[in-house]
Formats: sequence, C-alpha cells, structure tokens
Amino acid sequence: MNEHAKTVTARSGGRAARRAARAAPLADHLRPVRAGLQGGTYNPLTEPQMHRIHQAALDVLEQIGLADAPESGIRHLTGAGAILGDDRRIRFPRALVEDTLARANRQITLFGRDPAHDMELSGTRVHYGTAGAAVHMVDVAGRRYRECTVQDLHDAARICDVLDNIHFVQRPMVCRDIPDNREMDLNTIYACASGTTKHIGVSFTEPAFVDDGLKMLHLIAGGEDKWRERPFVSNSNCFVVPPMKFATEACIVMEKLIEGGMPILLLSAGQAGATAPAPIAGAIVQAVAECLAGLVYVNAVKPNHPAIFGTWPFVSDLRTGAMSGGSGEQALLTAGCAQMHRYYGIPGGAAAGIADAKLPDMQAGWEQAISNVMAGLSGLNMIYEAAGMHASLLGFCHESLILGDDLIGQALRCVRGIEVDEDSLSVETIRATCLGGPGHFLGSDQTLARMQTDYIYPTLADRTSPKEWDEKGKPDLIERATARKEQILGERARARFDPETDAAIRRAFRIHLPG
Amino acid sequence: MNEHAKTVTARSGGRAARRAARAAPLADHLRPVRAGLQGGTYNPLTEPQMHRIHQAALDVLEQIGLADAPESGIRHLTGAGAILGDDRRIRFPRALVEDTLARANRQITLFGRDPAHDMELSGTRVHYGTAGAAVHMVDVAGRRYRECTVQDLHDAARICDVLDNIHFVQRPMVCRDIPDNREMDLNTIYACASGTTKHIGVSFTEPAFVDDGLKMLHLIAGGEDKWRERPFVSNSNCFVVPPMKFATEACIVMEKLIEGGMPILLLSAGQAGATAPAPIAGAIVQAVAECLAGLVYVNAVKPNHPAIFGTWPFVSDLRTGAMSGGSGEQALLTAGCAQMHRYYGIPGGAAAGIADAKLPDMQAGWEQAISNVMAGLSGLNMIYEAAGMHASLLGFCHESLILGDDLIGQALRCVRGIEVDEDSLSVETIRATCLGGPGHFLGSDQTLARMQTDYIYPTLADRTSPKEWDEKGKPDLIERATARKEQILGERARARFDPETDAAIRRAFRIHLPG
Repeated sequence: MNEHAKTVTARSGGRAARRAARAAPLADHLRPVRAGLQGGTYNPLTEPQMHRIHQAALDVLEQIGLADAPESGIRHLTGAGAILGDDRRIRFPRALVEDTLARANRQITLFGRDPAHDMELSGTRVHYGTAGAAVHMVDVAGRRYRECTVQDLHDAARICDVLDNIHFVQRPMVCRDIPDNREMDLNTIYACASGTTKHIGVSFTEPAFVDDGLKMLHLIAGGEDKWRERPFVSNSNCFVVPPMKFATEACIVMEKLIEGGMPILLLSAGQAGATAPAPIAGAIVQAVAECLAGLVYVNAVKPNHPAIFGTWPFVSDLRTGAMSGGSGEQALLTAGCAQMHRYYGIPGGAAAGIADAKLPDMQAGWEQAISNVMAGLSGLNMIYEAAGMHASLLGFCHESLILGDDLIGQALRCVRGIEVDEDSLSVETIRATCLGGPGHFLGSDQTLARMQTDYIYPTLADRTSPKEWDEKGKPDLIERATARKEQILGERARARFDPETDAAIRRAFRIHLPG
Repeated sequence: MNEHAKTVTARSGGRAARRAARAAPLADHLRPVRAGLQGGTYNPLTEPQMHRIHQAALDVLEQIGLADAPESGIRHLTGAGAILGDDRRIRFPRALVEDTLARANRQITLFGRDPAHDMELSGTRVHYGTAGAAVHMVDVAGRRYRECTVQDLHDAARICDVLDNIHFVQRPMVCRDIPDNREMDLNTIYACASGTTKHIGVSFTEPAFVDDGLKMLHLIAGGEDKWRERPFVSNSNCFVVPPMKFATEACIVMEKLIEGGMPILLLSAGQAGATAPAPIAGAIVQAVAECLAGLVYVNAVKPNHPAIFGTWPFVSDLRTGAMSGGSGEQALLTAGCAQMHRYYGIPGGAAAGIADAKLPDMQAGWEQAISNVMAGLSGLNMIYEAAGMHASLLGFCHESLILGDDLIGQALRCVRGIEVDEDSLSVETIRATCLGGPGHFLGSDQTLARMQTDYIYPTLADRTSPKEWDEKGKPDLIERATARKEQILGERARARFDPETDAAIRRAFRIHLPG
C-alpha cells in the first residue's frame, strides 16, 4: 500500500511483441523528437512586460545610441536614417527601428551541406547545437584541462555529425595550436566542414581573412553560385562590445560577409552586472537594443539579408564578477530573450546548456538541463552552446557533448509537449482495460503503437534496476561516453570531402589536419 | 573579437564593497528564493485541452467508475450521490463531481512544528520536498546499494531540516530494519519528527496502526487539541490501485485519519503504459479521474477536509515495462497534472526530481533538473520526491539530497521569474554607465543592491575558473557533499523533542533510535 512506486514488469508476450516492433526503423516524421519542434509553452514575460522591454530598448537606442561604428557603418546607418551625434554615438529614431522590424527577414533557412540538415527558423521552431570559443579541452580521464587543438575541433564536428539531437555545429572552441589567426580561421572552416554535413557556424577574426574564407567555401560548395544558393556556414558576429559600443572591426567583417552571402548571427554578449545591467530585465533591454541596432545595420547594408537576432546576455556571479553560465538567472535571461524574438517575429538565438562545473558531474547535469529545457520550452529558434560546455565556456568536453545528446533528447521531448486528441485521451482504452479487460495496459494496441512514437529512449543514460546495474558491473556513465567517443572517431568520417575537392583546398591553403 | 565570453574580473574596489554587503544577513522577504514562490509561466496544455481532459475524466468516472471500495466507502459515496453498479463498481454522476469541486477546500495550510515552516497551498505557490518509499540507501563512496534503516531516515530528516530549499519532509524511504509494520509506522513518525520541524508526510500501512500514530502525535504536539489546531503531519494515501480500483485498506486508513484531523494526500500513482494509458494525455485523464473520485470520497466523509490532489502518474520505459522517473515524458506528465490542479483551483501535488541514475552523476543531474524546473514553472503546489531519489525511486542518497538543495535553489530562482519595473528595466543605469560613466556596471549602486536580492549563490556547486579549481586541488562534488553531510549530522539536532516529551514517547512505544 505504501509502495506506490512498484515496478511493473512486462509479461513476456507483450515484451516480445514490443521488441519486434522496436526493431523496425521509424519513418522520420514519426520519430519521437526531431529538429524544429515547436516550443512556446513557457512564457516568463507577459505581453505588457514585453511591450515595456521593447519601449525601453527604443529609448536606449534613441537617447543613448552606440559608439564606435566604423566609417562604413556610419555611412550605412546614417543613410538609413540613424543620427550621428557630436559625441560620435549613433542614435536610432524609433520609426527607423520599427520600419526595420517590419521589413527584416522573418523566415530564415540555415542550410546544411546535406539538405536533410536544413533548419527552418521561424515561429517557435527549436534547434539545439554547439557554439563558443573554449580555449581548453576537458580531459575527463586525467581530470585536467589542456589547450584545445584543431584535431579536437574536427573530432567535435565528427561527433556532432552522428548525434541526432545536435542540429548544428557552431565551432565550440578555438584552435590553440594554430598561432596565425588567418590560418586558424581557415582551418576552423576546414575542420568543421570536413567533420559534419550539418550547418556550421564560424567567427572570422579579421576582415582581411574573409576573402580567403569565402574562397574555401566556394571550393567546398563546388562554385560560388552553389555556395550562394545554399550557404551552409553562418558567421557568429560579435558586432557589439557591450554596453552600447559597436565592435569596429567585427562590423567590417559583417559587411564583407553580407556581401559574400553568408548569414549573420548578430551576437550581443553582455554580462549582467559587469557589461550589462544586473537586473535580468535590464540585461534583456540592453541585449535587445544592441541587436535591434545590428538588425538596422544589416538591413541598411542589404535589405532582407538573413540575420539571427542573437541576444546572448550572460550572468555574472556578483560575488566575484566571474561569469556563471550554469545559473538559474542565465536560464531566465535566455528564455526572456527568446520571448522577445517571438514578440518581434524575428528568428533568434541565445546561449543555454552551459555548465560552470569543470567536469561532467551532477552539477554539470543540472546546469545544462535547466537552461536547455527552458530555452526549448520558450521556443528559442537557435539554442547555442547547448552541449559540451564547461567552466562557464572556458572548456569543451567530448564526453559531455555525447551525454548532452541524451540530455537534449529529453529536453526535446518536453518541447514536443502533450498531444490531446480522441485517441490520446484514452477513454476507450481505459474502458476496455477496466471493464472485462486485463486490468493493465502493457499489451494493449495503443501501448504498442505509442512506444516508439511517443517515447524517447536514451542512448547512454542508465535505466537499469540496482540489481541489473550490479550484475552489469556498475557501468560508469563517463567511461561509457568515452567508449562511444572512441567508437565514433574510429569509424570512417561520413562528411569528408571528395578527394579532388580536398586536394584543391589543400593546394590553395595550408591545412593543418592530416590528409 | 571572437572571444565573446571573456571573463570580466571585478575591480578590487567594487569587490570589497560587494563582499562587505554580502556579510550582512538578508531579511527573509528579501531572500532571492523562498518557499511559496508563484509559478505558472509554463503551460503545456491550452484551455480547450484542459477542458477536454476534464470532460474525459468525467466520462471515465460516470461510465467506468471504480471497483473495490470498502463497505464504509460505499456507504459514504452512495450517500453523497454516487451509484453502486451490479458489477460493484462505483460510478460518479457529473453533477456530484462538479459539486464536490465547488465545495472542496481550496486553500490548505500544511503546518510545520515550527510555524516558520508553514506552507500555504493555493494558486501557483510552489514547495519542494522529499517523498517516496525507497528500500535502498545509495552508498556513494562504496558505489553500492544497501537496505535503508530508521537511522538513515532520521538522518535524512535532520539534513532536510537545515536545507533552505527543502520545504517539507515526506518520508523518502521505508525502515527496512524494522520488520514489524506497526513498529515501522510509529518509528517513521518518530524518526522524521525528531529530525525536523518542517511539515512531515508519512504513509500508514494498516488501519489498525492509526490510533497509535495519532497518540504519538498528540504526545509530540502537547495534547490532542494542539495537534488538531496545527496538524504537522499529512498522510500520503495511496487510495487507488490504478487503473480505477480503490485500495480497500488504504481507504479505511484514510477514513480514520480524516477523523483524526490529519490532512490527506490523495495519491494516484499509475504508470503510463502499465497501469495507466501510454499516451501522456490518457495517463493524466486517469490520474485526474481517480483523484476526483478521492476528492468526492474525502468530502463525503468530512466536507472541506484538507485533501491534496495527488495526481502522480509515472512513466514506463516501454522497452522493459520498468519505471523511468527521469524521463522527459515524466516531466510533462507532472507539469500537465499541475495545470489541471490550477484548472480546478484545488491544491495539488505530484512527483518530480526523480533520477533513474544509480549514482549522483551527470545523468542524475539532468534527470532531477528537467522535471523539477518544469514542475516549479508550472506552479505545482507540492513537488514531491524532489531531492535524493535514485534508481527510479528504489534508492535514496543523502549526498544527492544535499546537492539537490543547490539544484532546487536554481529551479526556485527560475520559478521566481523576471521582474519588470522602472528600476529593473535599467534605462537610467545604462545611460549613466554609457554617457560619461565608467562603461561597465561592476560598481554601480544597482549592481550592489541587486547582488543579494536577485541572485542565488549555490552552496556546493563549483563556479571557480579552471585555474582556481586546479589550485584548490580539483575538489570533487560528491566528496564535498559527503563532508557537508558529516558536518550536519555532527551538529546537535535542532528539532529534537524536549526530554520529558521524549521520555513519554519512549514509555508508550518501542522507539528504535537511541535516546
């Protein structure tokens, strides 16, 4: 009676039938979770609150404006109607911002090299992926941090390529073994694109490297026209230095990339309490204001160019001023921003899934889960940094990335939500079960039909009983993730370039990865 | 430029001021999180969907009904207007259910022995606590499961007593070292109540043990009148055996406890795919139907008696039929139920925070976090099993309980949400910072004021940089939790009974814990 949680074991007949059912692969549209599921059931802000945030952002843009625009940016922005003040700050009349919002691209496709991985960003469609600029790799066996390399980056891309719940691969780390920044930028593209056919994100260091980067992308795509038709790389553009200053060089990078046909992630990464206001609402106001300025900028350079509204405010631990990406405050910031994207109807992205924990331990699990699930439920189109990120973005971990795929699978199941229709309400099933039926649902047709379409099963997370677990030798989660990593990296890379393309790239550029 | 996540280190002046500010204790109403924060920003069901679930539950009650009511229950229920069929099932006319909903107790106070821990259950006020009937303790150092004892239970209560974010202590485990069920029930009360002054939940095994239990509670309270004035123990009453059968003995326990003045948790613990329909909506329909039957029952015995609507549907891993409390489906079930509680305006509770993981590892972190944060955001009044639960409820872990307090702290921060007002919007702060100001927010008055009221700092979760972490000897999360456990248990128990009361209890009953 007080054992309310008894484990019900399946009758062998039902189990055999279920096992057979599970052996057959599911059609893609029947999979329990997939990229682009629609969120939006979680709304931390009310309509009037969103309106106040919008009005405050307009005030900030109109009255405070942004400093440090490059000369070319000043031309573009004042040409569109922005005002250059005596203090060299650019201020944005409300009407200019509202007009831009009305005309901006509201339905962006981020292409994969393989069209199966295309992402449609609109409404509350949710996608999870990596991102960041970690400088360390987490060595879980050695419990230590070391500098990350181009091989680590390539391996991360290869791992992502086979993980169902990682939908895109923005480069999560910088190649610390390539001291020359031009070579680093070019090898970053190569390491990512040769590792995965999913959409890729990079971040050019200097305007002077853009032409070479585009040249490499044309080679990979098989021509500039093919690249422009389906640009499979976007640029993470830190176009502002919060609070309210344009990042002069990054703006020039952005202008060149717009010209080159690359989608732009307008990334505003303030840190609440340090480079953004400490209150969550204020950090959102500033991020929104900065991204609105960026949106005006992009549309002034080229109307309708695809630009993702990248409000990425982070959180400070105010005791030390250090960043804390694993906090509840971070989850709220990201979800609040996602709601503002919906308020504007503009595709947006923000950061979630960051752990402050140094290792993939219990702390990492809860930190990554809270912000990832809230970001998904809030309907964030692009959830960046969703897996593998430790030490508040300073470290990346392959094992954690693999476990993150399981974590995000569960988050996606939550995003999918609860279907309510005649069959799922189950009145007839309950009737058939209780009135003259078997008194349980184990072997019912409904249960058999739903087990694959409604339930997601983890790959590495352990659901055995204590007894089974003991009999299996008490498998360690991290050791299993390491084994999976070695298995993936031991297989032939699926995304490699064909030999001619690879040779052409290697003739044109110094590629650090061995051929 | 591509280092968007630079750690901003505080200037020493600002840091010193912040440290000084943090030294002063905060008034309780200024604490960043507390019991009873209001959720409700997450709504997995639409209004029409909730209406359909309600109508389906009414259909189930009217057409299928419940079997196995005790004779006394048949008298109570038919007296209230329910119909006993030739098949001995009790069916509930729609009007009876609607009338009960209109008249039932909508504002329940669950008392603590210390009034500071009283919980007001109404609206979307959220409380987290323990619960369950684990049979194992998780020995983290030995990586093994062992049978749990009354000492383990008492220690869990003592640990909960000092954890800010554990608001109540329903007994999470059964005392496997007390073979006699009467002695077990009585020692469960003693072990919990002598360990904490927070509200306690127990679960009587047999009707024959209730009188002794109440007698002990009268002794603890200082008299029956004092007990009835502030009953600080509620009974977790598994009054149904899903699908749609009353648990005959448990119903008699319930009747006796209503008589004795004890609040009732009407607990329906079906398992989707096994003892409840596999679709999430169907499992909710059945749980709601069963709890509505329970609510009619309680109000037939004693109108307005405090009864918590305990829709606790669990999830099966349909590959094996075994329970999976750590799944995304579980989080959705619990959140959907929370919304139905709000639909009725009846205080409710459900299960969240369950890990399938055997140890407090990364899997445990994400499993506990996803359901706990979704339960809180959905405004669930009583979040049971929120901390310490492993192996799908079979194991309890003191270290995990302690870490769960940190996890729930972050979840509560998310429940609290985003305040939007003139000051938090921060337009003036941004202006002062950007126009002739320092260009950062580290030392601003607003940052100093908000750092304690708006931000919650974890107790054990590690936010150091990789360098600091290395210098500190790479502290292990679990080892730190064990150290904290030993510290708590090494201190004098705050909740112990006064010597006379203790002696009186020990004269009247065989108490297993040493005096």
